[in-house]
Amino acid sequence: MQQAKRVEMALEMALAEAAGPRSPPLLAAALRYALFPGGHRIRPQIVLSVARACGDANPEGADAAAAAIELLHSASLIHDDLPAFDDAGTRRGKPSVHVQFGEPIAVLAGDALIILAYETLGRGFATDPRQLGQLVSIVSRAVGAPGGIVAGQAWESETAIPLVDYQRAKTGALFAGATLAGAAAAGWDPEPWRALGEAIGEAYQVADDLRDLLCSAEELGKPVGQDERRARPNAATQLGIGGAKTRLTALADLAADSIPACPGAEELRAVIRAQTRQLFPSQLAQFAA
Amino acid sequence: MQQAKRVEMALEMALAEAAGPRSPPLLAAALRYALFPGGHRIRPQIVLSVARACGDANPEGADAAAAAIELLHSASLIHDDLPAFDDAGTRRGKPSVHVQFGEPIAVLAGDALIILAYETLGRGFATDPRQLGQLVSIVSRAVGAPGGIVAGQAWESETAIPLVDYQRAKTGALFAGATLAGAAAAGWDPEPWRALGEAIGEAYQVADDLRDLLCSAEELGKPVGQDERRARPNAATQLGIGGAKTRLTALADLAADSIPACPGAEELRAVIRAQTRQLFPSQLAQFAA
Repeated sequence: MQQAKRVEMALEMALAEAAGPRSPPLLAAALRYALFPGGHRIRPQIVLSVARACGDANPEGADAAAAAIELLHSASLIHDDLPAFDDAGTRRGKPSVHVQFGEPIAVLAGDALIILAYETLGRGFATDPRQLGQLVSIVSRAVGAPGGIVAGQAWESETAIPLVDYQRAKTGALFAGATLAGAAAAGWDPEPWRALGEAIGEAYQVADDLRDLLCSAEELGKPVGQDERRARPNAATQLGIGGAKTRLTALADLAADSIPACPGAEELRAVIRAQTRQLFPSQLAQFAA
Repeated sequence: MQQAKRVEMALEMALAEAAGPRSPPLLAAALRYALFPGGHRIRPQIVLSVARACGDANPEGADAAAAAIELLHSASLIHDDLPAFDDAGTRRGKPSVHVQFGEPIAVLAGDALIILAYETLGRGFATDPRQLGQLVSIVSRAVGAPGGIVAGQAWESETAIPLVDYQRAKTGALFAGATLAGAAAAGWDPEPWRALGEAIGEAYQVADDLRDLLCSAEELGKPVGQDERRARPNAATQLGIGGAKTRLTALADLAADSIPACPGAEELRAVIRAQTRQLFPSQLAQFAA
């Protein structure tokens, strides 16, 4: 099956009961609204690409891991958009979840997606529960405290933000979680895959910072200029547009070079190169060619 | 070790890293603030009491399950107290988490506690991962959609609230999760333990409804009269004070009678009787003697 389709089907399966007829209707609708149609699905695609490069010995587990990573990402988007955080009225070109369904349902939808991520892992690794412990640990470190995306978000409430900890937690951790989860789901030692995830994560953060500075809200489907408005660190402001572009190119190379030896290393390298190229905002496409 | 001390130690262990020196300081402080000092710790006590009645073959797992249930309960309290929900300024006699630490940290602390609950299960069942799948499933059903506490809370956003689904999800599900988790952690088939958890859960809900109607805010350490203000179903309003008291007594008997055959059934029955007696608000103590 085509990889993009595997991601959509894994998400559909994950939602079947949680957003099914027994669920409170508004909550169920909000869960579907937050997940479909998706963005680039870059994180779950990374999970499946890495699992494939490692031989994909347990495709059901890899699908569950991919879905879990995307569910956790979506949960963080819903909560980040809340009035107490970014107060973002739009996301992926449509009203954000709290605008569409109200704040209580938005908070609960985020909570439900976090829970569903773990439930999905539990189902996906029911036949090999030894791996389940590894996956629970990987995703918890990627999203929780002290070093995951929740912690990354929490650094924004501090008066002094330690830049490296902040960026690694806010973006890098979940990308590292994606590469580790893909390797672990295929039965490989996950730790050697961390460098790849962190390089992609930092590339993604630099690209996001560039877009925040350069793109129009219409092009992005969400508000821009948020970093300056919120006094958050922004790589493109710190390094300058040219410096950020140089860094992005270097990170794309670093990512491609950090793929551990595995059966599908060469194919994966091509995938990673293609994915990092997509990170360049359209104004910068000429640099990325 | 004394059971109450086991609960506190399990929670301390769970928090060690998440609220440790590498965590963002405000988030770390909020996690500790939300967990300590605790309330009656009735849910984790039930986990350990059931595990003990079943022989407590895996005390480390039972401790992890008890901690996970309490972490999830605390997460739900933090989010329930938010301005978009109950807008409660106090909890356990002190300012609620969002009043003390701000709304962003309160949302994130709730998220972090949900994640930490699963991470704690992962650690506690590292030596017997087969059980981990069972525990992940039990707690996910207790707290997620379609039938857990998140769903229970979401029913409050619907115009028509199906009373049985609502009450079972909002309170009963986590108590059922506690009895099931205790049995599963000790290696027993969990399903026969559901009736006990649901009876305790309904008793707890009726008692809470009575307290909301009868007690002072000072006595409770949180706002009262919330159900009427929020037009939420309240058993004491529906059944009358006398009817609710009769129902509470019947549920206490039902709970004691629904304990499955197990080595420590008699001792557990005494524990459950003592715990349900504690549910009676002080104004009703004379009925509960």
